Amino acid sequence: MYVISYDITDDKRRQRLAKYLESYGVRVQYSVFETELNEQQLNSLIKGIKKKIKLSEDTVRIYPIQKDLRDRIVTIGIDKGRFYDSEFYIIG
Amino acid sequence: MYVISYDITDDKRRQRLAKYLESYGVRVQYSVFETELNEQQLNSLIKGIKKKIKLSEDTVRIYPIQKDLRDRIVTIGIDKGRFYDSEFYIIG
Repeated sequence: MYVISYDITDDKRRQRLAKYLESYGVRVQYSVFETELNEQQLNSLIKGIKKKIKLSEDTVRIYPIQKDLRDRIVTIGIDKGRFYDSEFYIIG
Repeated sequence: MYVISYDITDDKRRQRLAKYLESYGVRVQYSVFETELNEQQLNSLIKGIKKKIKLSEDTVRIYPIQKDLRDRIVTIGIDKGRFYDSEFYIIG
């Protein structure tokens, strides 16, 4: 599992990146997405992000979360959705 | 290592939480912090966050990052700082 967070000041660029990330995973906070990626998908995601942001102004972080640490993710307050929950919808 | 990200609409609450988190770690994006915590520190952090946000409106996520996965954290664009770098400052 991966967590993608970003700081993009320009509204148009930020919306464009959010739209692009929606094709990869679930938006859990205003500028945070969760997703599941293999190595190949991760590389194409990184290439795609580089084309959508301004490298000298914007910042994007991609954090790898070990599968067996998922249940130690803490949510405080409202829960806007989780990527790994959606696995249960598919099976259900 | 832990990553803390938050969505808080109210300016005053958001600033108060950011100030609180600065006592725990490094701010790497507008609403993302990185920090190193033991179990006890994590629990007191969670308690502290609960007192500072409005549980019905705000959302905070705490992600555990396995130590050996740190070097797989990807940064695209500008790098506003990393928690684990600061370890080198202390030794240096």
